Amino acid sequence: MHYNPLREQVQVNNPNLDTMEEDILYHFSLSTKTHNLPEMFGDIKFVCVGGSANRMKAFAQFIHQELKLPGNPGDVKDICEGTDRYCMYKVGPVLSISHGMGVPSISIMLHELIKLLHHAQCRDVVLFRLGTSGGVGLAPGTVVITEKAVDYSFRPQFEQVVLGKVITRNTELDEGVANELLQCSSELQTFPTVIGNTMCTHDFYEGQGRLDGALCSFSQEEKLEYLRKAYEAGVRNIEMESTVFAAMCRVCGLKGAVVCVTLLNRFEGDQITSSHDVLVEYQQRPQILVAHFIKKRLGYII
Amino acid sequence: MHYNPLREQVQVNNPNLDTMEEDILYHFSLSTKTHNLPEMFGDIKFVCVGGSANRMKAFAQFIHQELKLPGNPGDVKDICEGTDRYCMYKVGPVLSISHGMGVPSISIMLHELIKLLHHAQCRDVVLFRLGTSGGVGLAPGTVVITEKAVDYSFRPQFEQVVLGKVITRNTELDEGVANELLQCSSELQTFPTVIGNTMCTHDFYEGQGRLDGALCSFSQEEKLEYLRKAYEAGVRNIEMESTVFAAMCRVCGLKGAVVCVTLLNRFEGDQITSSHDVLVEYQQRPQILVAHFIKKRLGYII
Repeated sequence: MHYNPLREQVQVNNPNLDTMEEDILYHFSLSTKTHNLPEMFGDIKFVCVGGSANRMKAFAQFIHQELKLPGNPGDVKDICEGTDRYCMYKVGPVLSISHGMGVPSISIMLHELIKLLHHAQCRDVVLFRLGTSGGVGLAPGTVVITEKAVDYSFRPQFEQVVLGKVITRNTELDEGVANELLQCSSELQTFPTVIGNTMCTHDFYEGQGRLDGALCSFSQEEKLEYLRKAYEAGVRNIEMESTVFAAMCRVCGLKGAVVCVTLLNRFEGDQITSSHDVLVEYQQRPQILVAHFIKKRLGYII
Repeated sequence: MHYNPLREQVQVNNPNLDTMEEDILYHFSLSTKTHNLPEMFGDIKFVCVGGSANRMKAFAQFIHQELKLPGNPGDVKDICEGTDRYCMYKVGPVLSISHGMGVPSISIMLHELIKLLHHAQCRDVVLFRLGTSGGVGLAPGTVVITEKAVDYSFRPQFEQVVLGKVITRNTELDEGVANELLQCSSELQTFPTVIGNTMCTHDFYEGQGRLDGALCSFSQEEKLEYLRKAYEAGVRNIEMESTVFAAMCRVCGLKGAVVCVTLLNRFEGDQITSSHDVLVEYQQRPQILVAHFIKKRLGYII
């Protein structure tokens, strides 16, 4: 195999982009004309994304401390302050971005992120989704590293509509990064971590078989039957973004991983009843795991 | 027809709710045990929802002024301050809530909103989505009142997955409220307003036929062909939440309307290039229209 200098570069699959005079990344409130993207973002090696704006700010401050960077972690500044759609923090080679809830919301963010990394000429970028989820047969607080992101029928695929036609994209994630993360967890030995499939749904209530939504047309037994089938198909947790995340990473040549903590065991209930403090501690677990991964990759830990 | 005292009450379609000791509205950070929902929300008659948290705060302050309520509009307080998933402001009989971007995000909010209105024993509630959208054959700044919310194939339906099975729900909106809104616009005479169909997609780029995403596999001509077909099917704008909004309003007996301003004409481009000030003024138009509707209903305008 001969050397290909573009191999690890972030790939956009759109020939139109290079002919555009300006590219406005509308939902980031950034543009190729008003911002020097290579200067601002050229050194990015790790992108960490998660649903909640507050949580991704907390992660930026946490990774600032972990990497012992100069300056005050409390001073991290939202790069997307011109909009409230997403927030974005840069800490050394790490970018921390919020993506809201659900496939459409993260999909907009990923399109603009991938264009940003392309315009900034970033290379060798690893992308992580750090999230929360419902567990399937796991104790609350368990961290799940996703092997395959699967749909409501447990298929490892994402259906994308393009001009009114449905196309299907593969949603397998990078095996190497997943195993490296599992290794990090066994080094940390602070919380249980498993590799399993993650089911991605398009809502939180009916699609996930919750009995406590505004609408519910099924019984407790039918719910449990569906969760048992999911478990048999290797599903260990349920969230709302992983399929499009995996699909877009693959299509654009990005190594990606999904790391979600489970807030409850769905075999035992639907409502999230743990105390605020317990939930806050759970939500730090994916951050701790990914911070360990980043520190190892950067040579902070040998 | 005999008198039915429940007719205009907000209907949850879930027998489980009344047997639950507590209902935690997790993404609002509210609960039936820790909050007196009838006292807090029992007088709500209008619920206005929109994607952006900042915009829905601005709307709360605007409606506070318009209704000439006592106190300082700047003092409106986020009822959901315990979470950053959504924000919520109550101004007299009006509730203003953000819902993020996309069907899954607004769907979570609607489940918890409808449960909230049910627990609070609200009656005769009208629900509005105030949004932004891409226009199809309309001048930027035109306000579109949705007749039918349609999917990527221009069908007035929403596909909901329930325990792994796809069911279809109707997405026609309330004709009376739509006509009343159009009448409001002709009274205001400050911006162009039309009634038309609204296409709801699950992403902003490929699904809407944009040529400027990270991925694009079609030509300008194929894009225009798709938009022409949409126009012929009565579509006048494209956004990302209307189908599930319409479907849930119908199923729960809520009168609902979708009022979105167009930020660009998609026949002419994909990027949103108008200045910040112009976009801010456009985004106020649905707010002005709905505020006029509310003032008429409350007898402020005869």
